[in-house]
Amino acid sequence: MDSTQLLTTSTALLDQLRDATPLVQCLTNTVTPNFVANALLALGASPAMVDVPGEAGPFAAIASGTLINLGTPHSEQRTAMLEAATSAREADTPWVLDPVAVGALQLRTDLAHELVTLKPAIIRGNASEILALAGVGTGGQGVDSLDSADSAAEAATMLARSTGAVVAVSGEIDLITDGTKTARIDNGHPVLTAVTGAGCALGAVAAAFASLNEDRFATTVAACAVYTVAADIAVETSTSPGSFAVAFLDALHHITADDLTKRAWIS
Amino acid sequence: MDSTQLLTTSTALLDQLRDATPLVQCLTNTVTPNFVANALLALGASPAMVDVPGEAGPFAAIASGTLINLGTPHSEQRTAMLEAATSAREADTPWVLDPVAVGALQLRTDLAHELVTLKPAIIRGNASEILALAGVGTGGQGVDSLDSADSAAEAATMLARSTGAVVAVSGEIDLITDGTKTARIDNGHPVLTAVTGAGCALGAVAAAFASLNEDRFATTVAACAVYTVAADIAVETSTSPGSFAVAFLDALHHITADDLTKRAWIS
Amino acid sequence: MDSTQLLTTSTALLDQLRDATPLVQCLTNTVTPNFVANALLALGASPAMVDVPGEAGPFAAIASGTLINLGTPHSEQRTAMLEAATSAREADTPWVLDPVAVGALQLRTDLAHELVTLKPAIIRGNASEILALAGVGTGGQGVDSLDSADSAAEAATMLARSTGAVVAVSGEIDLITDGTKTARIDNGHPVLTAVTGAGCALGAVAAAFASLNEDRFATTVAACAVYTVAADIAVETSTSPGSFAVAFLDALHHITADDLTKRAWIS
Repeated sequence: MDSTQLLTTSTALLDQLRDATPLVQCLTNTVTPNFVANALLALGASPAMVDVPGEAGPFAAIASGTLINLGTPHSEQRTAMLEAATSAREADTPWVLDPVAVGALQLRTDLAHELVTLKPAIIRGNASEILALAGVGTGGQGVDSLDSADSAAEAATMLARSTGAVVAVSGEIDLITDGTKTARIDNGHPVLTAVTGAGCALGAVAAAFASLNEDRFATTVAACAVYTVAADIAVETSTSPGSFAVAFLDALHHITADDLTKRAWIS
Repeated sequence: MDSTQLLTTSTALLDQLRDATPLVQCLTNTVTPNFVANALLALGASPAMVDVPGEAGPFAAIASGTLINLGTPHSEQRTAMLEAATSAREADTPWVLDPVAVGALQLRTDLAHELVTLKPAIIRGNASEILALAGVGTGGQGVDSLDSADSAAEAATMLARSTGAVVAVSGEIDLITDGTKTARIDNGHPVLTAVTGAGCALGAVAAAFASLNEDRFATTVAACAVYTVAADIAVETSTSPGSFAVAFLDALHHITADDLTKRAWIS
Repeated sequence: MDSTQLLTTSTALLDQLRDATPLVQCLTNTVTPNFVANALLALGASPAMVDVPGEAGPFAAIASGTLINLGTPHSEQRTAMLEAATSAREADTPWVLDPVAVGALQLRTDLAHELVTLKPAIIRGNASEILALAGVGTGGQGVDSLDSADSAAEAATMLARSTGAVVAVSGEIDLITDGTKTARIDNGHPVLTAVTGAGCALGAVAAAFASLNEDRFATTVAACAVYTVAADIAVETSTSPGSFAVAFLDALHHITADDLTKRAWIS
């Protein structure tokens, strides 16, 4: 599939998502759940932050897709994450692993390695996190990457091959690989790094798209393209972080297949 | 009390709320506490998110009103919820139960049934949640209702009679019943369903109004009228979810008795 | 150091902060982490909400500064707070104690007294909280102060002397004291009290500035001056709470040394 086909597929998936209103379960950190839920709602998906043990497993079996984000992994949530991932795997619910700050912190690094064995459909992180999870880096400074996406290209390919997941590395350029094919999306904007939860919400959006069909590579490219093109639209309103965040939610609500066709830089 | 009287009472209660600055304790989910607190502050109430066991009970005894929202019921919070409801009941603090996603998930359904025995003053939910709590439905899809408010009218009346609570069913039309009288408010706007926490914040606002006097039916009608008229004002600024949420907080801050008189559709 | 010198130092520290991108660990409440993280990002610092036992201690040793905010002190977080404060003290990481609602609630009052023995660099609270922590008041109504900053001047001086911390009392006038020197900043605006997390984010900003040099008094004055001048800039855009909060994040991003020089009222 070349980049023109990827773009065509992305536009079709965007329309499909709005028709399907996928139910996206999020087991995410306590910092940005509001932004994550609002991003999903704005786009046309239905968020459900079900992360209590006893509920997380059964819900993963009926959700369209599941996000597991390791931002603030309290003990009860760690239990729920393993429960949800196990259930999602059994029920064939595609789930996304966001290994926040893995490498820099031991407890969540161990948890991430355990979760990886439960077969995430997608692993989304910044370059430092992907390098660390692939075993070739020590992680970033907290949640901020010290590496560029391209510097993690080889690690991402290795990680995709060893886990079977599509790996998405976020940065000024987004890099998506299934271990064989690799796509780059050149729509990122630095202001996204000045809004907390921008990465978290992309993980949730990737889970929403993953529910639409089995081609994990194409759906992840679509998620990243829609997300970064929405950012590209929002910076026309503002590049200041407070008002950008508001404009970005508006853009996720209004973005059309036509916007994607005109603005997405996929290669 | 006819609809004209309900409107007159609502306008008086709005002014009263701003004079009283009621202290509203919220035991709420981890997704939307920021929005809930900001909605209360914007309106002129004083939020206090006291949900730790050992603090939740004593605080419920001194709070003006208490909200218990089951959105993400972690085990420590479940303990705090039962403690707060017990204490609120003993101290005659009116408390609101928001049975988020009850019916769809067993753990919180059991908790909701236990809490109902502790005599909430108000139960606020969407149609699917009210149907499930009344025992005549299976709950919605996560937090989103699959039913209209009117479809839950009979269940709401039953639930009000069996629990002694005023039941408020949110939707495009809001329905409020004490089991005998029923009011409908026709100011809802679909964009409210595209902002996470819109229902949660209404529950908190209902707790704030409930603290003003003993007529639970009239105070709940006032809460729903003020809330939806503020939404009605905000959509004049924007119907996009990001900027609507901002405009909505501004509208809660500025809404006057006069706005209510001109815009509220109570029947 | 007179007020002109404090202003000059503040402008230098603002530029220094943007060069340094300090890594600020936050163990904060579940209500406002999003706003706190966004305020740090907007200003140019790097937030990391690491508050899980087992991670909080090691991270405090490598963080530039640490915030411990008692807003919603769940049991696991209480453990993490003591772990982080102990580690920060050993590693000479400056840490800020924000004793939210201390005095009004026993559990967190006990915790605050225990944390104070672990030598916070800065204690930031409203007047009611500072009075309560100093042992001369009973705390406010939840998180809202019932006292003015000046009414807590004597208590703040006592508390600074007994703990060795710089004490910052927030209010319409901010008061900062190290027990000997006292500064007042007269840039506060009432709308800050209508946005949840305004105090929490100031605590985090104080931790960011504290990482820049050892003069805790000067860095705390700088933090309060930058913060309240940003508010002063934002009210030119809006004094309504929803849009003010957005404008405030934008102002934190754009505020310059020149803005400080022109607008800060330090005495």
